Amino acid sequence: MKILVLGADGYLGWPLCMHLSAQGHEVAGIDNYWRRNSPQISNSRFLYQTPLLPDRCLAWNEKSGKSIHYFIGDLADPSTLNTAHNHFQQHLGYGFSFDSIVHLAEQPSAPFSVSSEKNADFTLMNNLRVTHNILWYMKHTCKDAQLVKLGTMGEYGTPNIDIEEGWLDISHKGRTDKFLFPRQAGSLYHTTKILDTDLIWYYTRIWGLRVTDLMQGPVYGICTDESDLSTPQLLTSFNYDDVFGTVVNRFAVMAALNFPLTIYGKGNQTRGYIHITDSMQCIHASIQNPAEQGELRIFNQITETLSVNEIAHKVCQCAKNLGMQGTIQNIDNPRIEKEEHYYNPVYQGLTQIGVNLHSMNDATLASMINIASSMSQNIDKSVFLPAIKW
Amino acid sequence: MKILVLGADGYLGWPLCMHLSAQGHEVAGIDNYWRRNSPQISNSRFLYQTPLLPDRCLAWNEKSGKSIHYFIGDLADPSTLNTAHNHFQQHLGYGFSFDSIVHLAEQPSAPFSVSSEKNADFTLMNNLRVTHNILWYMKHTCKDAQLVKLGTMGEYGTPNIDIEEGWLDISHKGRTDKFLFPRQAGSLYHTTKILDTDLIWYYTRIWGLRVTDLMQGPVYGICTDESDLSTPQLLTSFNYDDVFGTVVNRFAVMAALNFPLTIYGKGNQTRGYIHITDSMQCIHASIQNPAEQGELRIFNQITETLSVNEIAHKVCQCAKNLGMQGTIQNIDNPRIEKEEHYYNPVYQGLTQIGVNLHSMNDATLASMINIASSMSQNIDKSVFLPAIKW
Repeated sequence: MKILVLGADGYLGWPLCMHLSAQGHEVAGIDNYWRRNSPQISNSRFLYQTPLLPDRCLAWNEKSGKSIHYFIGDLADPSTLNTAHNHFQQHLGYGFSFDSIVHLAEQPSAPFSVSSEKNADFTLMNNLRVTHNILWYMKHTCKDAQLVKLGTMGEYGTPNIDIEEGWLDISHKGRTDKFLFPRQAGSLYHTTKILDTDLIWYYTRIWGLRVTDLMQGPVYGICTDESDLSTPQLLTSFNYDDVFGTVVNRFAVMAALNFPLTIYGKGNQTRGYIHITDSMQCIHASIQNPAEQGELRIFNQITETLSVNEIAHKVCQCAKNLGMQGTIQNIDNPRIEKEEHYYNPVYQGLTQIGVNLHSMNDATLASMINIASSMSQNIDKSVFLPAIKW
Repeated sequence: MKILVLGADGYLGWPLCMHLSAQGHEVAGIDNYWRRNSPQISNSRFLYQTPLLPDRCLAWNEKSGKSIHYFIGDLADPSTLNTAHNHFQQHLGYGFSFDSIVHLAEQPSAPFSVSSEKNADFTLMNNLRVTHNILWYMKHTCKDAQLVKLGTMGEYGTPNIDIEEGWLDISHKGRTDKFLFPRQAGSLYHTTKILDTDLIWYYTRIWGLRVTDLMQGPVYGICTDESDLSTPQLLTSFNYDDVFGTVVNRFAVMAALNFPLTIYGKGNQTRGYIHITDSMQCIHASIQNPAEQGELRIFNQITETLSVNEIAHKVCQCAKNLGMQGTIQNIDNPRIEKEEHYYNPVYQGLTQIGVNLHSMNDATLASMINIASSMSQNIDKSVFLPAIKW
């Protein structure tokens, strides 16, 4: 298959490019380096430096013998996809079209999205416009292709009813209809993903597109099947700060430095989590089993649900086993969120199309802590604590 | 009260400024003349010319002795509201803040929103960004003020269950929660209003804003309590084309020219309708009865539900009574929409806060047809038929 990965330089984008290439697909990626440059505009910190996209593609070619094509450009500009399309013709042939487009090209941080009016405006405008441009590009060049879009479990928030996979049959006053599962998110970033879903569903039914929307929980992990410490130039970009680092990744780095794991408020906030290799597997399985024409298929992409307290205790125990201190500190919650709530999402769909999910385990956490420990000289502890309140 | 009307030069905006001023409120309005300039970018046609906003305000002052303050600027620019605020200080005093903000400042045409990629992009970016800028302006200058936002009944689409007023209690697997009523619209324009609702609800609950969202049906009519043919320079801007003219207004103009009323498809499409004077009344009643802090209060702002066939027959009968031909022609539906569907919206909320609604009647329709007939020399029949398909 010819697959276009948007956001190809990101935490998920780059390992996904390699994973799809390794599976024999022809892969092209686009990125504008916004995440890579985000240290200039926030407290973003990477655990280690990574090569630019052209050098990453070169290193992958040297290791695997396979090519990943790339284009550097801003997808919020309505002309970028056309320009990139013309560029990719050199490699994929005149008249080519993509079979699948994977959309990971959004501003992905909840704290960043609420940190200022300017950053809120950027998040809203960037995320919606990128999605809109992709839909029109599909209409013009590959209407029968499929879009695999990264949503987030955060779109649902924490409703008091079971969370189904994206859709809900509703009975009301003796009549029934099927609707998008109601969504109510906890940050502006997560809200932009709700708007994405509404926008995509409109165009999906008007134009008969094929779309899979993956409601992913927070991802954790460093190594994937295609990259580990033996080829460090292929490693994904890994954040450990409070703005772009997800909770498990931050906890592993904090534990490696014997820094107390900070729990916001009571720590009973429960979410669904997934390891980065399972995320790769889920996206690939979605591509291999496309949605029908006019279908917005939605999967809840998580492996298990855990509270922040449960995660902290897992990481602490693991750190102690490695001879580290493994301590916890409860701090005031900087976020407006329920600390006690019902949470029961359904997540059967991806398993039904063949994905084999893996729970959070000691070996994975130990590996993350050890890698962070070996790079402790790179770590800026000042970004562990939340600087943004909302 | 000090009231800011956004979109003050529009079909609803200008009569609303006069109506609120007549009720004794201190009124300020902002507009960028996008609608006034829209003939340059689409098939928009006005039945008659109207003075620019400064001249409208002058004419209103001459008639009523009251002042309406104005500022010309683009609300999609994040700096405009601050600049306008500084400007209004000259009239409203240093340190002033608005008690109410009425948000009518959006690209309002469904056909325009789907007419090209560029116009779709404009509609999405403009409508979302204006709404977002208003919310931040409220946070900065008047967090305890109320926002009265114009939504549309079109957000709901045509679900197979009764349409409640914005919210729905949902029971699922033995548990219950309250959610925004599910929304699924028929055009990109209507979809941007869904995105507005999601965005506004996020900020309402995070910041504790007071918001009333008015799900309005298509409005019709020319004259209001503050403007009629005796003071023509105060009349609202009135479109009769297929892009910006709503169905009843178009039918009245077509009937006046003995042009067959064009019904799209079977004509069983049913919607809620409201006369422009009732729309003024509803917005004023909402302002007089503010939502609570942190409440997104939603009203369905319609007087009655009618099918396109019913409207066409009412207008035809009225035209015949005036000695005109009053004929109907069914044409292929240019829109993707259900022509047979269930439609049963609840609309009690506005009546409960004191609004006295008026059904579509012969006197109103006859007045519209007569005004159009008296201006028949202005009318370009070429814009009666739909030029945009989706």
